Amino acid sequence: MLVQAAMLQWESVLSPENLITNEEQLHAAATATFPIDLRIPAILRPATREQIQQCLRIATKFGIPVYPVSSGKNWGYGSAAPASDGCVLLDLSRMNRILDFNEDLGFVSVEPGVTQAQLLDFLRSRNSRLWIDATGSSPGCSLIGNTIERGFGHTPYGDHFGNVCGFEIVLATGEKLETGAARFPGSPAAPVYRWGLGPSLDGLFTQSNFGVVTRMTFWLMPAPECFQAFFFRCDQDEGLSAIVDALRRLRMSGTLRSSIHVGNDYKVLAGMQQYPWKETGGSTPLTPERMADFRRRMNFGAWNGSGGLYGTRAQVSEARRLLRRALAGKVSRLQFLDDRRLALASRFSGIFGLISRWDLSRALELVRPLYGVRKGQPSDRPLASAYWRKRTPPPERMDPDRDRCGLLWYSPVAPAQGGHARILAALSSQILLRHGFEPMLSITLITERALICVISITYDRETPGEDDRAMACYADLRRQLSAKGYIPYRLGTQSMSEMDAQGPYARLLEAVKRAADPAGILAPGRYESVGVQTVGDSRTGS
Amino acid sequence: MLVQAAMLQWESVLSPENLITNEEQLHAAATATFPIDLRIPAILRPATREQIQQCLRIATKFGIPVYPVSSGKNWGYGSAAPASDGCVLLDLSRMNRILDFNEDLGFVSVEPGVTQAQLLDFLRSRNSRLWIDATGSSPGCSLIGNTIERGFGHTPYGDHFGNVCGFEIVLATGEKLETGAARFPGSPAAPVYRWGLGPSLDGLFTQSNFGVVTRMTFWLMPAPECFQAFFFRCDQDEGLSAIVDALRRLRMSGTLRSSIHVGNDYKVLAGMQQYPWKETGGSTPLTPERMADFRRRMNFGAWNGSGGLYGTRAQVSEARRLLRRALAGKVSRLQFLDDRRLALASRFSGIFGLISRWDLSRALELVRPLYGVRKGQPSDRPLASAYWRKRTPPPERMDPDRDRCGLLWYSPVAPAQGGHARILAALSSQILLRHGFEPMLSITLITERALICVISITYDRETPGEDDRAMACYADLRRQLSAKGYIPYRLGTQSMSEMDAQGPYARLLEAVKRAADPAGILAPGRYESVGVQTVGDSRTGS
Repeated sequence: MLVQAAMLQWESVLSPENLITNEEQLHAAATATFPIDLRIPAILRPATREQIQQCLRIATKFGIPVYPVSSGKNWGYGSAAPASDGCVLLDLSRMNRILDFNEDLGFVSVEPGVTQAQLLDFLRSRNSRLWIDATGSSPGCSLIGNTIERGFGHTPYGDHFGNVCGFEIVLATGEKLETGAARFPGSPAAPVYRWGLGPSLDGLFTQSNFGVVTRMTFWLMPAPECFQAFFFRCDQDEGLSAIVDALRRLRMSGTLRSSIHVGNDYKVLAGMQQYPWKETGGSTPLTPERMADFRRRMNFGAWNGSGGLYGTRAQVSEARRLLRRALAGKVSRLQFLDDRRLALASRFSGIFGLISRWDLSRALELVRPLYGVRKGQPSDRPLASAYWRKRTPPPERMDPDRDRCGLLWYSPVAPAQGGHARILAALSSQILLRHGFEPMLSITLITERALICVISITYDRETPGEDDRAMACYADLRRQLSAKGYIPYRLGTQSMSEMDAQGPYARLLEAVKRAADPAGILAPGRYESVGVQTVGDSRTGS
Repeated sequence: MLVQAAMLQWESVLSPENLITNEEQLHAAATATFPIDLRIPAILRPATREQIQQCLRIATKFGIPVYPVSSGKNWGYGSAAPASDGCVLLDLSRMNRILDFNEDLGFVSVEPGVTQAQLLDFLRSRNSRLWIDATGSSPGCSLIGNTIERGFGHTPYGDHFGNVCGFEIVLATGEKLETGAARFPGSPAAPVYRWGLGPSLDGLFTQSNFGVVTRMTFWLMPAPECFQAFFFRCDQDEGLSAIVDALRRLRMSGTLRSSIHVGNDYKVLAGMQQYPWKETGGSTPLTPERMADFRRRMNFGAWNGSGGLYGTRAQVSEARRLLRRALAGKVSRLQFLDDRRLALASRFSGIFGLISRWDLSRALELVRPLYGVRKGQPSDRPLASAYWRKRTPPPERMDPDRDRCGLLWYSPVAPAQGGHARILAALSSQILLRHGFEPMLSITLITERALICVISITYDRETPGEDDRAMACYADLRRQLSAKGYIPYRLGTQSMSEMDAQGPYARLLEAVKRAADPAGILAPGRYESVGVQTVGDSRTGS
């Protein structure tokens, strides 16, 4: 059998313990937070770029599809699972070296296995003054993996793909490629200048299946003299629109330099606790009327915003003044938090009413990760909301795939205007409730002009029929939002057909694919709406 | 003859007056500010995207190479002239519509013929609060043309390619392509969200020959409440290093939000006057010793910096404090200028000693364009320095190609560190002087981490032998800087071999080229170091 011969060759490249064929591990890797039906024949765990090159040459020779994952924590979008059946998983988590670092120029070059937590530890061990930009996801997430999906974080460097350069890429042929100035050997501009000379290729290797990115340079921001987080809330559903417009103006003027996050009531409640099974007598979904009760009782708003202010003391103080002025009359509370106040609040949790007058220690539990992420400190805490509909509390070591948490994310992008935010919020709330799910929404002003609305369909995969209902809800959401022209900023592995590549755009991509991966073995189906998938699939069967 | 048949078809698409075959005009279009030897058989002047599509289909059918230019003002890098012989010029200057505009979101979508001046007029006529980002070049330069070359300006939106999205592109096949979210019909995110969904292709269409960009959306910054320009100088050659390091820190901390420009003494003198033929008794080059005399007499520094501060009154005042602190002891004068002081100075030019104590009205003449460009106001004034070595003053309507000004630009990019700035400045000064030219240099911190050193070889093409000496100087500069790993951020049409595309990088580009331009007719030789050029060239001859 072809596959068997390939396995022997992979084994000799990797050594037996890094070629995994244990059924339990294969099954775990093929499990996501929504139903997928695929088989992973093996997992390859290379430790070096050279091993990746050899592994891909073997895959190309035998025509066996291979799907690379960095940390595999792409929860809500497909976890570690490939975009098509029969792919061998290329697990890059052992490739976790930090290859270059420069405190003065503020950059670090890393391999795909390097996680947020690892980089944070590295910087601390060096007493570095540099911050990372962290996502709202887990500390164990890969920096490169997230950036390739064009994920975002919450500091001024939040647009991840906008703050990287100098990729090293291995093609399916085993060839190595470098982008930007990095393609010129010894170029001092390689880690600092994004565009290089001639056509810029970085964009081709995000949200694609053209190559395996084995190195990326991340720019890091210097810690500011002063940092404050701010929190506000608004008790009226219809208040969102004016808030988004006010925040856009502050982003465009440069006063707000990082992404601002506005979550609805469902999002906040799910951040604080699990589904109120007792209060609802076990019925789902949690209705807006009941939700309004929770808001009153637990003291949060219909909309709850947070963001960060960065700079010198005077810069932060001026930003505070401008933010107060811009949000006056639009939000009901606007509060500021810094390291000192947070430490005080923790010590005397009875005294301060920071975000809520209700239960300060609990509020602090919610606030702390929101505060930390704006300083580039990732937290596991937001992951707990994947357990929202579970009947038992989240375990110490959370694993939403293993624990059969249901989670589907759909994330349309729109102009950062109140009108668009209102339409997205209203439409998606309506759709989720109709399908029996709580509409947990966040709206993030990711750039000066654009917002991303992250919609979570959160459920319990143990509840019979729920998987199907969730998928139907997702399909409905997708249909209705795309009918209005909204496109998602990234795709889950189950919805790659949304790529909708057509005409000359599709033709150019196919040309690149053929040149980069003549056997069509790399991540078939990933960000593709045409062609190559079937090739890879049929060959696997042989 | 093939060409004749194509001409007839182009004529029927464009009407006779927009198919130019007049020898004088063809000769002018094939003239740059350095020696090139090529023939342009005709100039096509389409007014619409549809006409471009038809023109390119005809070119593809007959295998005739076509070279698109927007405004053709790529002085110092080849002007309007193609990168290879025998190309029909596709002059896009008639395509000058402003297609979309949004004051709230701060963007404008334009065609390639839209110039800096035109957009400025448009915004003024609308009483818009938005600023453009202007280059140091002429008001008549195309916005798209400059961005495709990855040119830069001097406001916070100075990295032009970093502040655009949603390209519309016509391929050589006549097909139309849109990038980013713009490829989804009716997507509201099209003018605001850069990356779209799936692989991002924008980078492929800058510094390349894969398609004709017929529309681009430019983001525009809202005018700040307060704007001040700053100017400083440093009398010691060796002071540059500490200045660059200090400015990098201010850029990285977000205090300086725009590119900062530091020019040497030769650059300043050439901005103020022509070559001092009388004082030197006609000998060239102007030696550093004589230059030092001019510095003392005319009161400027070995290094002369300028930049802009943007924000509210308090933000600008804090930036001023931080700038003063950072440059203390490193520069000999640091002065601030705003609209009010500029108006006052103009009125009472005897009273204020702004940049120099020498001749205020003359200093103002130099300062005004440096001030204006930081507010997005382009000026023709810097172009006068192309006439530096001329024996007669620049004419009212300057045209460096026609007037046989010699100008070659070489622009290496490097980390924004004092050490690199020092090496670039010292090495290039040495080389230019050795070849008999004045080393006019500017060092611009274009991003938080990178600087571009623009080196001008300025001469008089009327002086016998000077063309050859200039080309030899350029070759020497290029050889010595690239030996140290420095790459230029863009190329002149005469030096496209510096692309140095190799291996899988070159192979991917070739695949894109074949798919986008199967007949190889579009801008052969442009940002190419291999292949297609000969195809296009040989076909023309047939």
